[in-house]
Amino acid sequence: MTAEADRRFMRLALTLGARGMGNVWPNPAVGCVIVREGRIVGRGWTQPGGRPHAEVIALAAAGAAARGATAYVSLEPCAHHGRTPPCCDALAAAGVARVVTALEDPDPRVAGRGHDMLRRCGIAITTGVEAEAARRDHCGFLSRVQRGRPMVTLKLASSFDGRIATASGESQWITGAPARRLVHAQRARHDAVLVGGGTARADDPMLTVRGLGARHQPLRLVASRHLALPVDGALARSAGDVPLWLLHEGGSVPAALCERWQDLGARLVPVPLGPGRQLDPKGMLEVLGAEGLTRVFCEGGGQLAASLLAQGLVDELVGFTAGLALGAEGQPSIGALGIGALAEAPRFRLAEAQAVGPDIMHRWVAL
Amino acid sequence: MTAEADRRFMRLALTLGARGMGNVWPNPAVGCVIVREGRIVGRGWTQPGGRPHAEVIALAAAGAAARGATAYVSLEPCAHHGRTPPCCDALAAAGVARVVTALEDPDPRVAGRGHDMLRRCGIAITTGVEAEAARRDHCGFLSRVQRGRPMVTLKLASSFDGRIATASGESQWITGAPARRLVHAQRARHDAVLVGGGTARADDPMLTVRGLGARHQPLRLVASRHLALPVDGALARSAGDVPLWLLHEGGSVPAALCERWQDLGARLVPVPLGPGRQLDPKGMLEVLGAEGLTRVFCEGGGQLAASLLAQGLVDELVGFTAGLALGAEGQPSIGALGIGALAEAPRFRLAEAQAVGPDIMHRWVAL
Ligand SMILES: NC(=O)c1ccc[n+]([C@@H]2O[C@H](COP(=O)([O-])OP(=O)(O)OC[C@H]3O[C@@H](n4cnc5c(N)ncnc54)[C@H](OP(=O)(O)O)[C@@H]3O)[C@@H](O)[C@H]2O)c1
Ligand SMILES: NC(=O)c1ccc[n+]([C@@H]2O[C@H](COP(=O)([O-])OP(=O)(O)OC[C@H]3O[C@@H](n4cnc5c(N)ncnc54)[C@H](OP(=O)(O)O)[C@@H]3O)[C@@H](O)[C@H]2O)c1
Repeated sequence: MTAEADRRFMRLALTLGARGMGNVWPNPAVGCVIVREGRIVGRGWTQPGGRPHAEVIALAAAGAAARGATAYVSLEPCAHHGRTPPCCDALAAAGVARVVTALEDPDPRVAGRGHDMLRRCGIAITTGVEAEAARRDHCGFLSRVQRGRPMVTLKLASSFDGRIATASGESQWITGAPARRLVHAQRARHDAVLVGGGTARADDPMLTVRGLGARHQPLRLVASRHLALPVDGALARSAGDVPLWLLHEGGSVPAALCERWQDLGARLVPVPLGPGRQLDPKGMLEVLGAEGLTRVFCEGGGQLAASLLAQGLVDELVGFTAGLALGAEGQPSIGALGIGALAEAPRFRLAEAQAVGPDIMHRWVAL
Repeated sequence: MTAEADRRFMRLALTLGARGMGNVWPNPAVGCVIVREGRIVGRGWTQPGGRPHAEVIALAAAGAAARGATAYVSLEPCAHHGRTPPCCDALAAAGVARVVTALEDPDPRVAGRGHDMLRRCGIAITTGVEAEAARRDHCGFLSRVQRGRPMVTLKLASSFDGRIATASGESQWITGAPARRLVHAQRARHDAVLVGGGTARADDPMLTVRGLGARHQPLRLVASRHLALPVDGALARSAGDVPLWLLHEGGSVPAALCERWQDLGARLVPVPLGPGRQLDPKGMLEVLGAEGLTRVFCEGGGQLAASLLAQGLVDELVGFTAGLALGAEGQPSIGALGIGALAEAPRFRLAEAQAVGPDIMHRWVAL
């Protein structure tokens, strides 16, 4: 097999793996393609909830054709007995002759042991194929394992001059329907959607994925130190149907209010305080990482965005810019950052920019 | 000739005409292509300073081949004796058989008379070919003739969150070198570059076209009611070499200060006051229109941008967005607009969006 063909099949495995994004935490969204004599005989991706793993699905599809075949897997196969037997065993048992992977799995229970185990079974190993694309796709899982917190995408929909609402708080709708549809698709590829209490109070949002026929909903997370949130709003009314986690300062909320929210179906998640007597954004993400979350989609508002940016916690920035001007009285898309000089500003590298209906979407990744 | 071929040659005429943009005011930047039996035998565009006109150049290039040919002209040929004889006469004298134009010239001295005169000479006329593109290209000239003021392009280079400078006024450089190079190219295609006094005071800019081998410089315009501008800055030092017009409140500036600037080489242009005791932005543009300007490139800052936007005087908006966040203390790209509801916001239609080095450029036109 040529190196170019290896890369092509790996890109396919990555594309398949991406289908699981937002739906497989705490596990990585892995894709697998099994190729025999240049023909694809099996394809698989991590299933909702995180198992079965991609390799098992692809091997089942390939059946006897897996014997002597090459398996392309977008992350090192697992070597440990978890809730499922190790994928390495399954690949060996199926008689696969060669395994191509994009990355070593940094999970300490794997970390090279998968590759070793396969080698010991006489299987040829090629690794590092399309590693950069894989690091991008597995960014949330790698972040959880290596940094103990999920990756964060920060999305902001603003006017031409960077305002997310008028002075009076009107923000629905700055961008058009196509941009809003794309936001719903982006929500669906994250494990959870996060907003600050200010947005929950001002906009009474649902934070669900709508209009895409999605069967799965990301968790909904709201950060509010003392649970200063409307108990009769859209979030409260839907808490029994779509998971709602309330990030708050443990011990600071009256028991009756906690019970009220728990009765509604919300889960109360205590978070340490940071400097400035706000919930600590890093602490918040570490709590979420410990819960297994890998990908969080933060939709603002400006204050929460600023506190995440100020601590360097934003991995990806997604801007939607509309062709209208709101002027300096409008609400800033990013609150105070305390930056004195240009050189101190958090910087991002452009990943893509395109028109979305009447608006533009621009995506940037942290430097 | 098919309609499709007509459109193709007209697009070429428009492309040629655009070469004159910024360099031909008070005249329109016209392009002309002469085609005989499907072959191009002459090309021309309005020359620096506004004459010779495009048709004359193209006819000279075609020579005897113009006889029986079709002339594509991006604007109705002139019918009046100005500083040059009418182009209609030249086209007839050369024996052109057919003239295709994109638009009627709204100049009251032309306004259909060019087409009529050609028809009377037995020349076949087709008009309205690529009219929309021509209206876009001739927008500045049409604005001067029909509205009595130049078209205005407003350019703003800002951070991801719409800030044009840090709290302390640092703005050089938010965007990268490729964006700055594009700004210089855009300056060159306008008759004049305009900034508010705040920008002149904070940035000490040159406002010239640099690094493009340009032989022509747009006028430099600074709006400052009482000429509160540094007399030892870059603008002052270069006023003898590159034209500098100071828009101010006539009669409100001490004679000695006026003389100082005139000695430096600047031209003092009085402008009426508007509401809010600022120079009236509409009045300012009308003064510039009376001077013959057709295309003005405003580079801010935030206050001047706001006063132009608030009065609906911005025809085109060019944003450069860099991948960095400055936060709410940064200076807003657009000052206070006094907008109460989203529905009141000035709106623009997306014309293009693309990456420019590490930044994005997005261009919008007024609705
Ligand atoms: N166009 C858009 O994309 C968009 C998106 C979102 C919001 N918006 C608009 O933005 C406005 C709300 O923005 P906002 O800045 O006022 O509110 P915000 O950032 O949504 O919420 C700020 C609040 O979140 C809580 N919080 C908890 N931990 C925090 C932390 N570490 N850092 C900062 N805040 C933390 C605090 O409330 P507690 O006191 O309750 O802890 C704080 O007051 C609304 O007008 C909304 O319409 C627009
Ligand atoms: N990144 C960028 O693209 C960019 C571009 C430009 C500026 N900037 C930054 O923006 C800041 C300057 O912006 P700014 O908003 O303070 O100043 P500005 O808009 O450049 O200038 C405002 C001043 O212009 C004069 N003016 C005259 N007629 C006016 C009118 N109709 N409306 C408004 N102003 C009028 C007034 O000064 P008088 O009292 O003298 O009349 C007024 O104070 C600087 O920090 C600069 O670095 C950045």
